[in-house]
Amino acid sequence: MPDTSFFSRGAGLTVGEIAALTGVELGARTDPGIRLTGIGALDRAGRDDLSFFDNPRYATQLAETRAGCVIVGSKHLALVPEGLPHLVAANVSVAFAAVGRELYPAARAPAAVLPSVGISPRAEVDPTAEIEEGVTIEAFAVVGPGVRIGRGTIVSPGAVVASGCAIGRDCRIGAQVVLSNALLGNRVILHPGVKIGQDGFGYVPGRTGLDKVVQIGRVIIQDDVEVGANATIDRGAIRDTAIGEGTKIDNQAQIGHNVAVGRHSVIVAQVGISGSTSVGDGVMIGGQVGVTGHVSIGDGAQIAALSGVATDVPKGARWGGIPARPVREWLREVRFLTELAKKGRSPRNERDD
Amino acid sequence: MPDTSFFSRGAGLTVGEIAALTGVELGARTDPGIRLTGIGALDRAGRDDLSFFDNPRYATQLAETRAGCVIVGSKHLALVPEGLPHLVAANVSVAFAAVGRELYPAARAPAAVLPSVGISPRAEVDPTAEIEEGVTIEAFAVVGPGVRIGRGTIVSPGAVVASGCAIGRDCRIGAQVVLSNALLGNRVILHPGVKIGQDGFGYVPGRTGLDKVVQIGRVIIQDDVEVGANATIDRGAIRDTAIGEGTKIDNQAQIGHNVAVGRHSVIVAQVGISGSTSVGDGVMIGGQVGVTGHVSIGDGAQIAALSGVATDVPKGARWGGIPARPVREWLREVRFLTELAKKGRSPRNERDD
Amino acid sequence: MPDTSFFSRGAGLTVGEIAALTGVELGARTDPGIRLTGIGALDRAGRDDLSFFDNPRYATQLAETRAGCVIVGSKHLALVPEGLPHLVAANVSVAFAAVGRELYPAARAPAAVLPSVGISPRAEVDPTAEIEEGVTIEAFAVVGPGVRIGRGTIVSPGAVVASGCAIGRDCRIGAQVVLSNALLGNRVILHPGVKIGQDGFGYVPGRTGLDKVVQIGRVIIQDDVEVGANATIDRGAIRDTAIGEGTKIDNQAQIGHNVAVGRHSVIVAQVGISGSTSVGDGVMIGGQVGVTGHVSIGDGAQIAALSGVATDVPKGARWGGIPARPVREWLREVRFLTELAKKGRSPRNERDD
Repeated sequence: MPDTSFFSRGAGLTVGEIAALTGVELGARTDPGIRLTGIGALDRAGRDDLSFFDNPRYATQLAETRAGCVIVGSKHLALVPEGLPHLVAANVSVAFAAVGRELYPAARAPAAVLPSVGISPRAEVDPTAEIEEGVTIEAFAVVGPGVRIGRGTIVSPGAVVASGCAIGRDCRIGAQVVLSNALLGNRVILHPGVKIGQDGFGYVPGRTGLDKVVQIGRVIIQDDVEVGANATIDRGAIRDTAIGEGTKIDNQAQIGHNVAVGRHSVIVAQVGISGSTSVGDGVMIGGQVGVTGHVSIGDGAQIAALSGVATDVPKGARWGGIPARPVREWLREVRFLTELAKKGRSPRNERDD
Repeated sequence: MPDTSFFSRGAGLTVGEIAALTGVELGARTDPGIRLTGIGALDRAGRDDLSFFDNPRYATQLAETRAGCVIVGSKHLALVPEGLPHLVAANVSVAFAAVGRELYPAARAPAAVLPSVGISPRAEVDPTAEIEEGVTIEAFAVVGPGVRIGRGTIVSPGAVVASGCAIGRDCRIGAQVVLSNALLGNRVILHPGVKIGQDGFGYVPGRTGLDKVVQIGRVIIQDDVEVGANATIDRGAIRDTAIGEGTKIDNQAQIGHNVAVGRHSVIVAQVGISGSTSVGDGVMIGGQVGVTGHVSIGDGAQIAALSGVATDVPKGARWGGIPARPVREWLREVRFLTELAKKGRSPRNERDD
Repeated sequence: MPDTSFFSRGAGLTVGEIAALTGVELGARTDPGIRLTGIGALDRAGRDDLSFFDNPRYATQLAETRAGCVIVGSKHLALVPEGLPHLVAANVSVAFAAVGRELYPAARAPAAVLPSVGISPRAEVDPTAEIEEGVTIEAFAVVGPGVRIGRGTIVSPGAVVASGCAIGRDCRIGAQVVLSNALLGNRVILHPGVKIGQDGFGYVPGRTGLDKVVQIGRVIIQDDVEVGANATIDRGAIRDTAIGEGTKIDNQAQIGHNVAVGRHSVIVAQVGISGSTSVGDGVMIGGQVGVTGHVSIGDGAQIAALSGVATDVPKGARWGGIPARPVREWLREVRFLTELAKKGRSPRNERDD
């Protein structure tokens, strides 16, 4: 069984309950009364665990698994060994994830660090802050004047919420998060070390050096946004920086001033988006991508990891490369160059033609 | 009018005062007595706001703006609608920025999180630290033995200033900043989460693994330097790491040990500069650029975003690409490959010639 | 003499003691009784300092150095000026580093910020935590329920160690580090701002947006691992994220969920490794490299800075480029394209052939 020292198991679910919960089908000769209390990878799951199979590469693991039950896709049914209880799902990962959330409710959102609830006597909370009932503010957190925090929200140790910020309900403000000039919706998760609302990067040439362009905008973060550890989001210059509902941002991403990101988009780790760029809804930006300022990435576009976006990207497009262009063109060029160089057609040789 | 919940408006300035302050010209039929209290983008500004126009792309917004006054360049005067009060500037953005700093003095530098001034009883300050009058040290900040801090400086919540560091006057040490082995000039701004002075990355092969190369140098940061959120600057190994006067460093940049950056340079977000490299004065390094160790970037050079600098860069050069080379060459190669691949001249085809 | 304000000198070592300690040879006409108390670069070292020479580029500095003694390689003996005391080493940097560690023992690992030892009355330590004797927990640090910490470990100001974590002996947990769902070995160094054990980045499409894939694994960090400032390591989803013994990770690196890194590997600043990838023993990954998920990098492989690894990398291979391929092929292609474009053989010209 996988180690569960950090997330304990509860009463679990029967296979029948799982089928009902997720809408998947009970496999042939599978007892709906089997009770499962955890989830695990095929090679680590025990008889109390649900596992999953959706990649034929792991067929050997499927053949040898000790899992109590496995979710499989219908196209892989033939690979299920005789006698292994199983469930058949149209979308294996969606069904498996649903069971995971049900079996480990504590893992749905980060928890408080300390067991006490309410406002720690060792937190520093300005008397003008409006804190709803059921808010936890942990030791050494700082909440400034005029801040509003909705019920069910946890402000973790060392987090700083500066003057005038508003945080909705059931949010998780991780340890060492610093928040200023920002308004947050409900169920927003900010992982440890996130910095939101500091000055955008703007200067003009002055008499003795660079002079600051004041940054007087805000950061607006809508419901259900999640931001990864040590990511940074600058406040707007004379507009707002905005992150739309349900968008997920990974660790160490950097979002510049005035950037507007749409809803349900995914921004992977270490991406940098320069000032005044707009990103649509349902966009997928791969790890370490850089996006220049003042461009627009259309709804549903996908940008390959490590690309550099220097121009507008159309809706639904799949782009990659530096500078980014349609993925097909980019990969064709990469392959073309590889083959050309392999042929040894150095320019010198060509001159000899 | 743009939202001003975080930066309140004062008495403002008249258009005549703005003209005098910035040295711009009063436009035709523009009343110098108009009073403005804020700034805003063309599409959001109200009658109390100054706006600006310097990109013909936004001509429609100029035609429809409700701003009380607009700063424009002389070449765009023809686009100013009848009756719109305006000012005519040689450099629109410089003039607009100057007005912004005047109207929003609170936005010139980060403020303290809490309203109290002086040393918080909840800060931990070693008795041997020398703190000038007029220093603010907020709750949960830590100041170690022998630290010196000049007047007007704010040390924000959770910041840690370790043993022996010196901080000049009117500095802003953001929340969760950690500073060790460092000397700072005046008016230095360190945004939240900056980490300065930790060990550089140096190891040699040892008997059982990698052995540490001790890092006994310092970090020297001159006047008017600004460092963005979550950026990191390592201390020197047997030299110092140094950042010259007026240089601006964006979020999540990484500066390795022994690096020397000159004066008034600009280092954009997520740039990484490896150990012992030197960067001149007035250099511009675009976002996510990586610079290898032990090279030199000459004064006034500009490096395109996402480039990889692997060799010395001459003064005033504009370089780009991986590995970086003159921008013109790099772009020519990119275009050349694109066109070649488009022609479908695959090596196979060529063999058929 | 180099500035030593942050790392003070002790009684030092004689040249004879250094020769014995490091196994290097005493140079011709070099007095073994010369006493040295510090180390320095050739151009900065004084008569109390040991310096080193291993790059002919600095021959002028060697000729002019005021160092009390210099370590040189045997092949450079001819460059040593008459009368300069010297030591002759097979591996100059290894010997010099050994002396540095001996002369500056305080620089071997980060120190506590404040002079007091033991548990600060201003730290928040859950009564169920098991803290061995000789542990220092500084002001404003937070230690959650059930945490175990081994003797000799320092937990710096503002660090947060969440519920159930175990930390071995003689570790350094830097300021503002946040640790959850993690088990650490002995002598682990986490520099300021490191975030370990937060949720990995996993979602599945849901009815109204993206649903979380629960992350119930752990982070396992073995003995002698060092992690740079503001780096992030996510906990596993249904496996563990693991960093092997002696591996060194630089600032702002990002390690995704389920990643397994082997022993004695080196991961330079701003590298990103995506989920479920495995990295072998003795691997060298250059700065800003991105590694995609679910691939494997073999033992001893070396990846050039700024590369993008998209496929498995064989043991001992040297790869580079985006996508990464053998360095030799990559550089050949880069050069090939450069030369081709220089010849001005634009496709247009070719059509004229």
